[in-house]
Amino acid sequence: MPNRNRNYAIVGTGAVGGFYGAKLQKAGLEVNFLLRSDYEHVKKHGLIVESPEGDFTLPQVRGYHDSRKMPKFDVVIVGLKTTQNHFLPKILPDLLKDNGVVLVLQNGLNIETEIAKIVGAERVIGGLCFLCSYKVSPGHICHLDYGTITLGEYTEDYKYIGITNRLHQIANDFKSAEIPINLSADLLLSRWKKLVWNIPYNGLSVVLNARTDELMANPDTLILVEQIMREVVAGAKSCDRIIPDEFIPHMLDHTHKMKPYRTSMKIDYDESRPLELEAIFGNPIRAAEQAGIKLPQIEVLYRMLKFVDAENQEAERKRQLLSL
Amino acid sequence: MPNRNRNYAIVGTGAVGGFYGAKLQKAGLEVNFLLRSDYEHVKKHGLIVESPEGDFTLPQVRGYHDSRKMPKFDVVIVGLKTTQNHFLPKILPDLLKDNGVVLVLQNGLNIETEIAKIVGAERVIGGLCFLCSYKVSPGHICHLDYGTITLGEYTEDYKYIGITNRLHQIANDFKSAEIPINLSADLLLSRWKKLVWNIPYNGLSVVLNARTDELMANPDTLILVEQIMREVVAGAKSCDRIIPDEFIPHMLDHTHKMKPYRTSMKIDYDESRPLELEAIFGNPIRAAEQAGIKLPQIEVLYRMLKFVDAENQEAERKRQLLSL
Repeated sequence: MPNRNRNYAIVGTGAVGGFYGAKLQKAGLEVNFLLRSDYEHVKKHGLIVESPEGDFTLPQVRGYHDSRKMPKFDVVIVGLKTTQNHFLPKILPDLLKDNGVVLVLQNGLNIETEIAKIVGAERVIGGLCFLCSYKVSPGHICHLDYGTITLGEYTEDYKYIGITNRLHQIANDFKSAEIPINLSADLLLSRWKKLVWNIPYNGLSVVLNARTDELMANPDTLILVEQIMREVVAGAKSCDRIIPDEFIPHMLDHTHKMKPYRTSMKIDYDESRPLELEAIFGNPIRAAEQAGIKLPQIEVLYRMLKFVDAENQEAERKRQLLSL
Repeated sequence: MPNRNRNYAIVGTGAVGGFYGAKLQKAGLEVNFLLRSDYEHVKKHGLIVESPEGDFTLPQVRGYHDSRKMPKFDVVIVGLKTTQNHFLPKILPDLLKDNGVVLVLQNGLNIETEIAKIVGAERVIGGLCFLCSYKVSPGHICHLDYGTITLGEYTEDYKYIGITNRLHQIANDFKSAEIPINLSADLLLSRWKKLVWNIPYNGLSVVLNARTDELMANPDTLILVEQIMREVVAGAKSCDRIIPDEFIPHMLDHTHKMKPYRTSMKIDYDESRPLELEAIFGNPIRAAEQAGIKLPQIEVLYRMLKFVDAENQEAERKRQLLSL
């Protein structure tokens, strides 16, 4: 049974935070949403979730526009894109109970380390979402596929502490909301494993303007995907995390069987949003470099992406200036 | 003084062959052009060259449509793109005098080796063109900038034989046509040095849809250019050719000072022509690999280019089918 006394805040009510927050509230948990541009709309109309598991509407949600006017929470879920994390130092301290935790539902590596600098390492939990969803419009989330979250405790330098009691408690809340949960005893390993997929597919899909099925169908990009995956495994190894040999063919096989998929980074690019390049590319490259290992092919992707992202953001700024 | 008895054939009357062939004829040398789709037009109207060094027209040229109906030549200049080299085994044996030579005015590495298989190593000379020009329409060449050719003898396995007498003779013919000539005592070294520029700029300009000045202005692509140049230097070293350290900053500085430039590979891509990927990327990668050296960043570029080239050619095939 979920603990009805454990209250939740959602920072970032988009494809991730909006989806999971709505599911938790629907299951009867107390959920509070910190909103910015969508505040007026969500206050008035609530949230809509379309999902193959069943559409639902929450006509009323606890919406706030200012973190200083919010109560304190047991669990603060960060569902922002990592490109928005510069807002967190002003927000998170307002929201946490003394023994509250931040659950970071973000992509990439060493995200928790940055959030630990704000709230302390002992108050950070990492979450990896295997979710296809997007925000249609303010307060309107479309869930396409998947949805499992892998939860793991963060500790300084990702030292092993295994699965804690509070991890089980949060997992139970999520499970009560029909959100599939895996518990990871090694968050850093889980983060690197997720990068084995995210780095090649997100990167190549943007640079080459391609869906996953197109990358898999061409023999050259297929080789490139595999070589880049091997560099991610080498990066993990440089951080003392061993990804087993069979993981790469497993990921390739899994992607072969997936429906044609536009990656989340490609969607961000197409929507002229800034790309999560430091979290997904820069941090892994730097982590490996600190361990004395170069990831040359990932670095090519990273620098190409920084080029196209800069061009994309510059074009977006010009469009916004013209529409003023 | 040029030898008025030395006769020339031009195979490929486009941006390169059309430009140099027209210059040679204008200087009074006997030049014969093997033409395919442009045959009727050039037979009727001759050649037009626009150039900052002075426009000129050749109302009449010796044009042929069939290599079997041509006489034999002292020098056969190959100005085709390397993607057309599969035509050469049927053409070159028809055109060469017993002591004639093929002058290969093409980009890339180990091109001469393939042509040597057709005519014998002792009958191949390599030429590297530093030329900005393009074919406006059949028989109409626009010369934009530069024009120097570096000539070097080919030998099996690129063994050193220095500068020969026949190299001097051909050089004199070209100089009489106001074509600046450098003589190279080491063709393989010259080819690798040209790749130091061609590999990063041609590759990145296509993948990132960028001009040279845009690649130089962005800090990430600038780093990428330099890293890729270093891999080319490593590739050269694997073939026992030492490119001095100062060559890379020299190339970067040169490119900084160039006018904004759309690379020849980018022009090919934009015109939906197949890209010269094996000559410029595949052969250098394989040459280094045979020497036990990986060029991982160049390989990323190569495989990305093969992907976009395949997509581009597929789209072109569809357009041509629709226009039938």
